[in-house]
Amino acid sequence: MSFSSSLLERVVQELSRLPGIGKKTALRLALHLVNTPAGEVQQLSDALTALRNEMKFCKTCHNISDQELCNICNNPMRKKQVICVVESIRDVIAIENTQQYSGSYHVLGGLISPLDGIGPDQLKIDALVERIETEETEELIFALNPNIQGDTTLFYIHKKLGDKKITISTISRGISFGGELEYADEMTLARSIQNRQPVTQYVGMRG
Amino acid sequence: MSFSSSLLERVVQELSRLPGIGKKTALRLALHLVNTPAGEVQQLSDALTALRNEMKFCKTCHNISDQELCNICNNPMRKKQVICVVESIRDVIAIENTQQYSGSYHVLGGLISPLDGIGPDQLKIDALVERIETEETEELIFALNPNIQGDTTLFYIHKKLGDKKITISTISRGISFGGELEYADEMTLARSIQNRQPVTQYVGMRG
Repeated sequence: MSFSSSLLERVVQELSRLPGIGKKTALRLALHLVNTPAGEVQQLSDALTALRNEMKFCKTCHNISDQELCNICNNPMRKKQVICVVESIRDVIAIENTQQYSGSYHVLGGLISPLDGIGPDQLKIDALVERIETEETEELIFALNPNIQGDTTLFYIHKKLGDKKITISTISRGISFGGELEYADEMTLARSIQNRQPVTQYVGMRG
Repeated sequence: MSFSSSLLERVVQELSRLPGIGKKTALRLALHLVNTPAGEVQQLSDALTALRNEMKFCKTCHNISDQELCNICNNPMRKKQVICVVESIRDVIAIENTQQYSGSYHVLGGLISPLDGIGPDQLKIDALVERIETEETEELIFALNPNIQGDTTLFYIHKKLGDKKITISTISRGISFGGELEYADEMTLARSIQNRQPVTQYVGMRG
Protein backbone atom coordinates (compact mmCIF):
# COMPACT_ATOMS: atom_id res chain seq x y z
CA MET A 1 0.00 0.00 0.00
CA SER A 2 1.29 3.47 -0.78
CA PHE A 3 0.37 6.46 1.36
CA SER A 4 0.64 10.20 0.80
CA SER A 5 0.99 10.69 4.58
CA SER A 6 3.53 9.02 6.83
CA LEU A 7 1.28 9.70 9.85
CA LEU A 8 -1.45 7.63 8.22
CA GLU A 9 1.02 4.94 7.25
CA ARG A 10 2.27 4.68 10.84
CA VAL A 11 -1.26 4.26 12.24
CA VAL A 12 -2.08 1.58 9.66
CA GLN A 13 1.13 -0.27 10.56
CA GLU A 14 0.45 -0.08 14.30
CA LEU A 15 -3.21 -1.12 14.01
CA SER A 16 -2.48 -4.04 11.70
CA ARG A 17 -0.29 -5.61 14.42
CA LEU A 18 -3.45 -6.29 16.44
CA PRO A 19 -4.94 -9.78 16.12
CA GLY A 20 -7.55 -10.20 13.40
CA ILE A 21 -6.85 -6.77 11.88
CA GLY A 22 -5.30 -6.73 8.42
CA LYS A 23 -4.02 -3.81 6.37
CA LYS A 24 -7.41 -3.05 4.81
CA THR A 25 -9.28 -3.02 8.13
CA ALA A 26 -6.48 -0.94 9.67
CA LEU A 27 -6.83 1.60 6.85
CA ARG A 28 -10.60 1.75 7.34
CA LEU A 29 -10.16 2.37 11.08
CA ALA A 30 -7.43 4.98 10.47
CA LEU A 31 -9.58 6.91 7.97
CA HIS A 32 -12.44 6.77 10.46
CA LEU A 33 -10.17 8.38 13.07
CA VAL A 34 -9.24 11.12 10.59
CA ASN A 35 -12.90 12.19 10.63
CA THR A 36 -13.37 11.74 14.40
CA PRO A 37 -13.19 14.76 16.77
CA ALA A 38 -9.67 15.08 18.20
CA GLY A 39 -11.01 14.77 21.76
CA GLU A 40 -12.43 11.31 21.11
CA VAL A 41 -9.18 10.08 19.57
CA GLN A 42 -7.33 11.40 22.63
CA GLN A 43 -9.74 9.49 24.91
CA LEU A 44 -9.13 6.25 23.02
CA SER A 45 -5.39 6.80 23.11
CA ASP A 46 -5.40 7.63 26.85
CA ALA A 47 -7.52 4.59 27.65
CA LEU A 48 -5.02 2.30 25.88
CA THR A 49 -1.96 3.60 27.73
CA ALA A 50 -3.82 3.77 31.06
CA LEU A 51 -4.82 0.10 30.75
CA ARG A 52 -1.28 -1.01 29.99
CA ASN A 53 0.48 1.18 32.57
CA GLU A 54 -1.94 1.12 35.49
CA MET A 55 -3.52 -2.33 35.40
CA LYS A 56 -2.56 -4.84 38.07
CA PHE A 57 -3.21 -8.51 38.60
CA CYS A 58 -5.15 -9.41 41.76
CA LYS A 59 -2.67 -10.91 44.24
CA THR A 60 -5.22 -13.51 45.34
CA CYS A 61 -6.91 -14.75 42.16
CA HIS A 62 -4.58 -13.28 39.46
CA ASN A 63 -7.52 -11.72 37.63
CA ILE A 64 -6.98 -8.32 35.99
CA SER A 65 -7.64 -5.55 38.50
CA ASP A 66 -7.30 -1.83 39.24
CA GLN A 67 -6.13 -2.40 42.83
CA GLU A 68 -4.11 -5.01 44.75
CA LEU A 69 -7.28 -7.07 45.15
CA CYS A 70 -9.84 -7.32 42.35
CA ASN A 71 -13.48 -6.28 42.72
CA ILE A 72 -14.54 -9.92 43.07
CA CYS A 73 -12.04 -10.84 45.83
CA ASN A 74 -12.85 -7.54 47.56
CA ASN A 75 -16.60 -8.15 47.53
CA PRO A 76 -17.81 -9.42 50.96
CA MET A 77 -20.93 -10.93 49.32
CA ARG A 78 -18.87 -13.49 47.33
CA LYS A 79 -18.19 -16.87 48.94
CA LYS A 80 -14.44 -17.15 49.56
CA GLN A 81 -14.69 -20.89 50.33
CA VAL A 82 -15.68 -21.71 46.74
CA ILE A 83 -13.00 -21.25 44.06
CA CYS A 84 -13.64 -21.58 40.33
CA VAL A 85 -10.41 -22.44 38.48
CA VAL A 86 -10.18 -20.94 34.97
CA GLU A 87 -7.57 -20.58 32.25
CA SER A 88 -7.82 -16.84 31.53
CA ILE A 89 -9.37 -13.47 32.35
CA ARG A 90 -11.72 -14.00 29.40
CA ASP A 91 -13.24 -17.05 31.12
CA VAL A 92 -13.91 -15.02 34.28
CA ILE A 93 -15.81 -12.46 32.18
CA ALA A 94 -17.80 -15.23 30.43
CA ILE A 95 -18.84 -16.84 33.75
CA GLU A 96 -19.59 -13.46 35.38
CA ASN A 97 -21.89 -12.66 32.44
CA THR A 98 -24.07 -15.69 33.32
CA GLN A 99 -24.77 -14.08 36.76
CA GLN A 100 -25.10 -17.61 38.17
CA TYR A 101 -21.88 -17.83 40.19
CA SER A 102 -21.25 -16.17 43.54
CA GLY A 103 -17.91 -17.67 44.60
CA SER A 104 -14.35 -16.51 43.87
CA TYR A 105 -11.99 -17.35 41.00
CA HIS A 106 -8.44 -18.48 40.39
CA VAL A 107 -6.90 -17.56 37.02
CA LEU A 108 -4.18 -20.04 36.03
CA GLY A 109 -2.86 -17.92 33.17
CA GLY A 110 -2.86 -20.84 30.72
CA LEU A 111 -3.10 -24.62 30.55
CA ILE A 112 -0.40 -27.30 30.79
CA SER A 113 0.72 -27.93 27.22
CA PRO A 114 4.09 -29.69 26.80
CA LEU A 115 3.95 -29.27 23.01
CA ASP A 116 3.87 -25.47 23.43
CA GLY A 117 6.52 -25.65 26.16
CA ILE A 118 4.08 -24.69 28.94
CA GLY A 119 4.68 -26.64 32.13
CA PRO A 120 2.96 -26.42 35.56
CA ASP A 121 5.67 -24.02 36.83
CA GLN A 122 4.59 -21.29 34.40
CA LEU A 123 1.01 -21.37 35.71
CA LYS A 124 -0.42 -20.17 39.03
CA ILE A 125 -0.85 -23.74 40.33
CA ASP A 126 1.41 -23.47 43.41
CA ALA A 127 -0.41 -20.27 44.34
CA LEU A 128 -3.71 -22.14 44.08
CA VAL A 129 -2.53 -24.98 46.35
CA GLU A 130 -1.21 -22.47 48.90
CA ARG A 131 -4.48 -20.57 48.75
CA ILE A 132 -6.50 -23.72 49.42
CA GLU A 133 -4.35 -24.43 52.47
CA THR A 134 -4.58 -20.95 54.00
CA GLU A 135 -8.13 -19.99 53.06
CA GLU A 136 -9.99 -23.09 54.28
CA THR A 137 -11.46 -23.69 50.82
CA GLU A 138 -14.47 -26.00 50.79
CA GLU A 139 -15.14 -26.40 47.11
CA LEU A 140 -13.10 -26.27 43.90
CA ILE A 141 -14.90 -26.00 40.55
CA PHE A 142 -12.82 -26.55 37.41
CA ALA A 143 -14.10 -24.54 34.42
CA LEU A 144 -11.37 -25.41 31.91
CA ASN A 145 -11.78 -25.87 28.17
CA PRO A 146 -12.77 -29.47 27.34
CA ASN A 147 -9.61 -30.44 25.45
CA ILE A 148 -6.41 -32.39 26.16
CA GLN A 149 -4.66 -29.39 27.76
CA GLY A 150 -7.66 -28.70 29.99
CA ASP A 151 -7.90 -32.34 31.10
CA THR A 152 -4.14 -32.59 31.71
CA THR A 153 -4.23 -29.49 33.90
CA LEU A 154 -7.27 -30.79 35.80
CA PHE A 155 -5.61 -34.18 36.49
CA TYR A 156 -2.33 -32.54 37.52
CA ILE A 157 -3.97 -30.22 40.06
CA HIS A 158 -6.25 -33.00 41.32
CA LYS A 159 -3.24 -35.22 41.97
CA LYS A 160 -1.31 -32.38 43.62
CA LEU A 161 -4.12 -31.77 46.10
CA GLY A 162 -3.74 -35.37 47.33
CA ASP A 163 -6.35 -36.32 49.93
CA LYS A 164 -7.39 -32.84 51.03
CA LYS A 165 -10.96 -32.81 52.25
CA ILE A 166 -12.57 -30.52 49.68
CA THR A 167 -15.33 -31.06 47.12
CA ILE A 168 -13.86 -30.99 43.63
CA SER A 169 -16.06 -30.76 40.53
CA THR A 170 -15.85 -29.74 36.91
CA ILE A 171 -18.48 -27.90 34.86
CA SER A 172 -20.87 -30.33 33.18
CA ARG A 173 -20.38 -31.27 29.57
CA GLY A 174 -23.22 -32.18 27.27
CA ILE A 175 -25.41 -30.99 24.45
CA SER A 176 -25.52 -27.16 24.24
CA PHE A 177 -28.82 -25.45 24.86
CA GLY A 178 -30.48 -25.19 21.43
CA GLY A 179 -28.08 -27.78 19.97
CA GLU A 180 -29.23 -30.78 17.94
CA LEU A 181 -28.43 -34.36 18.92
CA GLU A 182 -27.97 -35.29 15.27
CA TYR A 183 -24.99 -32.94 14.87
CA ALA A 184 -23.35 -33.49 18.26
CA ASP A 185 -20.00 -35.33 18.20
CA GLU A 186 -19.92 -38.88 19.59
CA MET A 187 -17.74 -38.03 22.59
CA THR A 188 -20.09 -35.29 23.78
CA LEU A 189 -23.20 -37.38 23.19
CA ALA A 190 -21.68 -40.40 25.00
CA ARG A 191 -20.72 -38.22 27.99
CA SER A 192 -24.13 -36.63 28.15
CA ILE A 193 -25.76 -40.08 28.34
CA GLN A 194 -23.30 -41.29 31.02
CA ASN A 195 -23.85 -38.13 33.06
CA ARG A 196 -27.63 -38.06 32.63
CA GLN A 197 -29.50 -35.93 35.16
CA PRO A 198 -32.72 -36.70 37.05
CA VAL A 199 -35.70 -35.03 35.40
CA THR A 200 -36.81 -33.57 38.74
CA GLN A 201 -33.54 -31.60 38.85
CA TYR A 202 -33.97 -30.46 35.26
CA VAL A 203 -37.56 -29.30 35.83
CA GLY A 204 -36.33 -27.46 38.91
CA MET A 205 -33.67 -25.61 36.90
CA ARG A 206 -36.19 -24.53 34.25
CA GLY A 207 -38.63 -23.17 36.80
CA MET B 1 -20.53 -7.48 30.09
CA SER B 2 -19.18 -7.24 33.63
CA PHE B 3 -15.54 -6.39 34.29
CA SER B 4 -13.34 -6.68 37.34
CA SER B 5 -11.27 -3.71 36.11
CA SER B 6 -12.61 -0.30 35.15
CA LEU B 7 -9.46 0.33 33.06
CA LEU B 8 -10.33 -2.72 30.95
CA GLU B 9 -13.97 -1.65 30.73
CA ARG B 10 -12.96 1.81 29.48
CA VAL B 11 -10.74 0.39 26.71
CA VAL B 12 -13.51 -1.99 25.59
CA GLN B 13 -15.97 0.92 25.48
CA GLU B 14 -13.60 3.13 23.49
CA LEU B 15 -12.60 0.40 21.03
CA SER B 16 -16.19 -0.69 20.40
CA ARG B 17 -16.99 2.81 19.08
CA LEU B 18 -14.83 2.09 16.04
CA PRO B 19 -16.67 0.91 12.91
CA GLY B 20 -17.02 -2.87 12.57
CA ILE B 21 -15.76 -3.54 16.11
CA GLY B 22 -18.29 -4.95 18.58
CA LYS B 23 -17.95 -5.61 22.30
CA LYS B 24 -16.48 -9.09 21.85
CA THR B 25 -13.84 -8.00 19.34
CA ALA B 26 -13.03 -4.99 21.53
CA LEU B 27 -12.50 -7.31 24.52
CA ARG B 28 -10.25 -9.58 22.45
CA LEU B 29 -8.14 -6.59 21.37
CA ALA B 30 -8.02 -5.18 24.92
CA LEU B 31 -6.85 -8.50 26.39
CA HIS B 32 -4.23 -8.70 23.65
CA LEU B 33 -2.94 -5.28 24.72
CA VAL B 34 -2.77 -6.47 28.35
CA ASN B 35 -0.16 -9.00 27.22
CA THR B 36 1.70 -6.62 24.87
CA PRO B 37 4.90 -4.85 26.03
CA ALA B 38 4.07 -1.38 27.38
CA GLY B 39 6.36 0.26 24.78
CA GLU B 40 4.35 -1.15 21.88
CA VAL B 41 1.04 0.02 23.38
CA GLN B 42 2.60 3.48 23.82
CA GLN B 43 3.64 3.47 20.15
CA LEU B 44 0.12 2.63 19.03
CA SER B 45 -1.36 5.28 21.28
CA ASP B 46 1.13 7.94 20.11
CA ALA B 47 0.49 7.09 16.45
CA LEU B 48 -3.26 7.61 16.92
CA THR B 49 -2.96 11.05 18.53
CA ALA B 50 -0.20 12.13 16.14
CA LEU B 51 -2.40 11.29 13.15
CA ARG B 52 -5.37 13.21 14.49
CA ASN B 53 -3.42 16.25 15.75
CA GLU B 54 -0.72 16.66 13.10
CA MET B 55 -2.36 15.57 9.86
CA LYS B 56 -3.22 18.19 7.26
CA PHE B 57 -5.14 18.18 4.01
CA CYS B 58 -3.14 19.11 0.90
CA LYS B 59 -4.16 22.64 -0.11
CA THR B 60 -4.07 21.72 -3.79
CA CYS B 61 -5.71 18.28 -4.05
CA HIS B 62 -7.29 17.94 -0.54
CA ASN B 63 -5.67 14.55 -0.04
CA ILE B 64 -4.43 13.68 3.47
CA SER B 65 -0.89 14.97 3.96
CA ASP B 66 1.87 15.67 6.48
CA GLN B 67 2.74 19.07 4.97
CA GLU B 68 0.89 21.89 3.20
CA LEU B 69 1.33 20.00 -0.09
CA CYS B 70 0.99 16.20 -0.24
CA ASN B 71 3.76 13.90 -1.48
CA ILE B 72 1.97 13.50 -4.82
CA CYS B 73 1.49 17.23 -5.52
CA ASN B 74 5.06 17.83 -4.35
CA ASN B 75 6.54 15.20 -6.66
CA PRO B 76 8.07 16.84 -9.79
CA MET B 77 7.76 13.53 -11.69
CA ARG B 78 3.93 13.60 -11.56
CA LYS B 79 2.09 15.30 -14.46
CA LYS B 80 0.31 18.35 -13.05
CA GLN B 81 -1.72 18.82 -16.26
CA VAL B 82 -3.65 15.59 -15.67
CA ILE B 83 -6.07 15.52 -12.72
CA CYS B 84 -7.92 12.42 -11.54
CA VAL B 85 -11.11 13.35 -9.67
CA VAL B 86 -12.01 10.97 -6.82
CA GLU B 87 -14.50 10.83 -3.97
CA SER B 88 -12.17 10.07 -1.03
CA ILE B 89 -8.64 9.49 0.23
CA ARG B 90 -9.33 5.76 0.06
CA ASP B 91 -9.77 5.98 -3.73
CA VAL B 92 -6.40 7.74 -4.06
CA ILE B 93 -4.75 4.86 -2.19
CA ALA B 94 -6.55 2.28 -4.37
CA ILE B 95 -5.41 3.96 -7.61
CA GLU B 96 -1.86 4.53 -6.31
CA ASN B 97 -1.66 0.82 -5.51
CA THR B 98 -2.17 -0.02 -9.21
CA GLN B 99 1.07 1.92 -10.01
CA GLN B 100 -0.46 2.80 -13.40
CA TYR B 101 -1.22 6.49 -12.91
CA SER B 102 1.32 9.29 -12.95
CA GLY B 103 -0.87 12.41 -12.86
CA SER B 104 -2.24 14.33 -9.87
CA TYR B 105 -5.52 13.97 -7.94
CA HIS B 106 -8.42 16.01 -6.70
CA VAL B 107 -10.31 14.65 -3.68
CA LEU B 108 -13.92 15.89 -3.63
CA GLY B 109 -14.59 14.70 -0.09
CA GLY B 110 -17.88 13.04 -1.07
CA LEU B 111 -20.43 12.83 -3.88
CA ILE B 112 -23.54 14.93 -4.56
CA SER B 113 -26.38 13.16 -2.78
CA PRO B 114 -29.54 15.25 -2.18
CA LEU B 115 -31.13 12.42 -0.15
CA ASP B 116 -28.25 12.58 2.35
CA GLY B 117 -28.32 16.39 2.29
CA ILE B 118 -24.99 16.67 0.47
CA GLY B 119 -24.98 19.41 -2.15
CA PRO B 120 -22.17 20.66 -4.46
CA ASP B 121 -21.23 23.42 -1.96
CA GLN B 122 -20.06 20.87 0.62
CA LEU B 123 -17.63 19.31 -1.85
CA LYS B 124 -14.36 20.66 -3.25
CA ILE B 125 -15.92 21.36 -6.66
CA ASP B 126 -15.29 25.12 -6.78
CA ALA B 127 -11.69 24.48 -5.80
CA LEU B 128 -11.41 22.04 -8.72
CA VAL B 129 -12.81 24.54 -11.23
CA GLU B 130 -10.44 27.22 -9.93
CA ARG B 131 -7.53 24.80 -10.13
CA ILE B 132 -8.33 23.94 -13.76
CA GLU B 133 -8.33 27.66 -14.63
CA THR B 134 -5.04 28.49 -12.94
CA GLU B 135 -3.04 25.32 -13.57
CA GLU B 136 -3.58 24.96 -17.32
CA THR B 137 -5.03 21.50 -16.89
CA GLU B 138 -5.09 19.43 -20.08
CA GLU B 139 -6.96 16.33 -18.96
CA LEU B 140 -9.55 15.47 -16.35
CA ILE B 141 -10.20 11.81 -15.48
CA PHE B 142 -13.26 11.01 -13.37
CA ALA B 143 -12.76 7.94 -11.15
CA LEU B 144 -16.06 8.04 -9.24
CA ASN B 145 -18.10 5.09 -8.04
CA PRO B 146 -20.50 3.89 -10.76
CA ASN B 147 -23.76 4.77 -8.98
CA ILE B 148 -26.36 7.55 -9.12
CA GLN B 149 -24.36 9.83 -6.79
CA GLY B 150 -21.20 9.32 -8.87
CA ASP B 151 -23.00 10.03 -12.15
CA THR B 152 -24.79 13.10 -10.72
CA THR B 153 -21.47 14.53 -9.53
CA LEU B 154 -19.83 13.80 -12.89
CA PHE B 155 -22.65 15.52 -14.85
CA TYR B 156 -22.66 18.50 -12.48
CA ILE B 157 -18.92 19.14 -12.80
CA HIS B 158 -19.02 18.52 -16.57
CA LYS B 159 -21.75 21.15 -16.98
CA LYS B 160 -19.93 23.59 -14.71
CA LEU B 161 -16.79 23.40 -16.83
CA GLY B 162 -18.82 24.63 -19.84
CA ASP B 163 -16.78 24.69 -23.04
CA LYS B 164 -13.29 24.68 -21.56
CA LYS B 165 -10.82 23.05 -23.91
CA ILE B 166 -9.74 20.04 -21.88
CA THR B 167 -10.06 16.33 -22.44
CA ILE B 168 -12.56 14.83 -20.02
CA SER B 169 -12.90 11.10 -19.53
CA THR B 170 -14.17 8.62 -16.98
CA ILE B 171 -12.61 5.29 -16.01
CA SER B 172 -13.94 2.50 -18.21
CA ARG B 173 -16.71 0.28 -16.97
CA GLY B 174 -17.08 -3.30 -18.01
CA ILE B 175 -16.60 -6.88 -16.96
CA SER B 176 -14.03 -7.20 -14.13
CA PHE B 177 -10.84 -9.09 -14.85
CA GLY B 178 -11.58 -12.72 -13.92
CA GLY B 179 -15.34 -12.04 -13.91
CA GLU B 180 -17.85 -14.20 -15.75
CA LEU B 181 -20.24 -12.85 -18.42
CA GLU B 182 -22.98 -15.14 -17.16
CA TYR B 183 -23.08 -13.44 -13.76
CA ALA B 184 -22.57 -9.83 -14.86
CA ASP B 185 -25.57 -7.51 -14.45
CA GLU B 186 -27.32 -6.35 -17.66
CA MET B 187 -26.31 -2.71 -17.30
CA THR B 188 -22.61 -3.58 -17.06
CA LEU B 189 -22.76 -6.08 -19.90
CA ALA B 190 -24.70 -3.64 -22.14
CA ARG B 191 -22.13 -0.88 -21.47
CA SER B 192 -19.22 -3.17 -22.11
CA ILE B 193 -20.68 -4.06 -25.54
CA GLN B 194 -21.37 -0.40 -26.41
CA ASN B 195 -17.87 0.61 -25.33
CA ARG B 196 -16.11 -2.31 -27.00
CA GLN B 197 -12.39 -1.83 -27.60
CA PRO B 198 -10.34 -2.64 -30.71
CA VAL B 199 -8.50 -5.94 -30.26
CA THR B 200 -5.22 -4.32 -31.33
CA GLN B 201 -5.48 -2.03 -28.30
CA TYR B 202 -6.33 -4.98 -26.04
CA VAL B 203 -3.37 -7.03 -27.30
CA GLY B 204 -1.17 -3.97 -26.80
CA MET B 205 -2.27 -3.67 -23.15
CA ARG B 206 -1.61 -7.33 -22.47
CA GLY B 207 1.86 -7.19 -24.01
